[in-house]
Amino acid sequence: MSNPLKVAVVQHACTADKEINLERSKDGIENAVSNGARIIVLPELHASEYFCVTQDTASFDLAEPVLGPTTKTLAKLAAQHKIVIVGSIFERRAAGVYHNTAVVLDTDGRLAGKYRKMHIPHDPGYNEKFYFTPGDQGFAPIKTTIAKLGVLVCWDQWFPEAARLMALAGAELLIYPTAIGWDPNDMVDEQLRQLDAWRVIQRSHAIANGLPVMTCNRVGKENDPSGKTAGNHFWGHSFICGPQGELFATGDTEPMTLTAEIDLAASERVRQIWPYLRDRRIDAYQELLSLDASESEQ
Amino acid sequence: MSNPLKVAVVQHACTADKEINLERSKDGIENAVSNGARIIVLPELHASEYFCVTQDTASFDLAEPVLGPTTKTLAKLAAQHKIVIVGSIFERRAAGVYHNTAVVLDTDGRLAGKYRKMHIPHDPGYNEKFYFTPGDQGFAPIKTTIAKLGVLVCWDQWFPEAARLMALAGAELLIYPTAIGWDPNDMVDEQLRQLDAWRVIQRSHAIANGLPVMTCNRVGKENDPSGKTAGNHFWGHSFICGPQGELFATGDTEPMTLTAEIDLAASERVRQIWPYLRDRRIDAYQELLSLDASESEQ
Repeated sequence: MSNPLKVAVVQHACTADKEINLERSKDGIENAVSNGARIIVLPELHASEYFCVTQDTASFDLAEPVLGPTTKTLAKLAAQHKIVIVGSIFERRAAGVYHNTAVVLDTDGRLAGKYRKMHIPHDPGYNEKFYFTPGDQGFAPIKTTIAKLGVLVCWDQWFPEAARLMALAGAELLIYPTAIGWDPNDMVDEQLRQLDAWRVIQRSHAIANGLPVMTCNRVGKENDPSGKTAGNHFWGHSFICGPQGELFATGDTEPMTLTAEIDLAASERVRQIWPYLRDRRIDAYQELLSLDASESEQ
Repeated sequence: MSNPLKVAVVQHACTADKEINLERSKDGIENAVSNGARIIVLPELHASEYFCVTQDTASFDLAEPVLGPTTKTLAKLAAQHKIVIVGSIFERRAAGVYHNTAVVLDTDGRLAGKYRKMHIPHDPGYNEKFYFTPGDQGFAPIKTTIAKLGVLVCWDQWFPEAARLMALAGAELLIYPTAIGWDPNDMVDEQLRQLDAWRVIQRSHAIANGLPVMTCNRVGKENDPSGKTAGNHFWGHSFICGPQGELFATGDTEPMTLTAEIDLAASERVRQIWPYLRDRRIDAYQELLSLDASESEQ
């Protein structure tokens, strides 16, 4: 038994002009559709530059409600092509409450669900704790007519806990809209270490959970208007891998649409020969709920 | 500030003769010592063939108490060379209670601690649930005079939970004595997928936790006396990597001793620029203590 499914990630650069960005997303989606893709993933915050490079209250004006213009644009495309689209918005939930939110549009254009980023980074060039309230809805897969999607966002990709929780809750695919790049001042060997680590950690979620993974990163260089950092060189390298972490499609640092065929039925077969989920020691995992297991011993 | 430390893994083949096996371990240890190594790791169950290839009550005769002949041999070497050795034994804890146990000998030859394998596999060629009672002592690092070691064993390497728990409890290094191989009947592409997944999942533990990882696998082909399987071709490929998952030393399928210099002080610096431990959402991880998070919603 197999259940083949064409999926795609649309890796593009972003500008200060939302119209141009949404046009790029649309072009990539239509390209993916012409290749037969039925689930299409966009980069994190694809409708704007990565404003978190600095802390500026003016950037809150970029925020939209969940059913705002970006989501509506994607909904129209989803319905038109009868596809599932995973987009990413800067969500204005209330005055003073903003989230980094993934939206999933189903094949009829309706909002299948949203995921509010749970793990929020904050580092030079990635000032996300200034902008985003951490999600309060946990790790719940989003059901669509095609598959149950374990949608996470960027920084979540470094946390095995997030991937595991989505898998345990029944996700059939793990999906990571992403905006990650190099500090142009870093040495090339450090840049390559970071890129490699990023690929390894996400492929490991496929392996540990027996699920395909799709990750979509933006590309291009964006400046830091504050001048405090050298800006970000978003490294692209989006990829699609199978439930053994095997790479089906990988990008480089240029704009591109990657398509691959995955087999959702393969996950259960892989879990039968690599039965990690069978053997989890849930009787001995209590300290995963602590920040420091050695402290709780005292 | 740096704290450089030479470490080594001794990858060798095993025979039905315990004396020969311990001689090989000793040769590898002395080779590593001559290269300056101060923490030396042996493969899983290095004193015997991998008897779990089949289920045979006669194999219980191979079991030893924690302070049995294998541990005593290693203790003498540790004291003689003032090094830490991580060995692996088939432990007879009581009549009918056997464990797959790692033993850590400190620089004075005393037993610094033991770790009883928590996750027990059971698959064709790896009938471990027949032999080993799952560990009941959890995931506790073992303190030595050189470093606090997060010792896990083989199948544990596929569980991000185990690595995380060791890190949270203060481990400075993750260590995996291992016995894993190819099914000779598998196609080469499947064999390479498995090897690659094995490397990726263990490097991901380094990355997720900002810790070096040492993994030591046996090599060589061993038959299945029952004839039920084609036996195991243990794939070696032991490795030592740093806290960004960067590879310092890797083996192939031949017997060899790998040495590398790691820097224990680097881990804290890496955790400062990649602060995953800062951002764990322990308020939202409760379902990690379930086998199936979707069920608990009902």
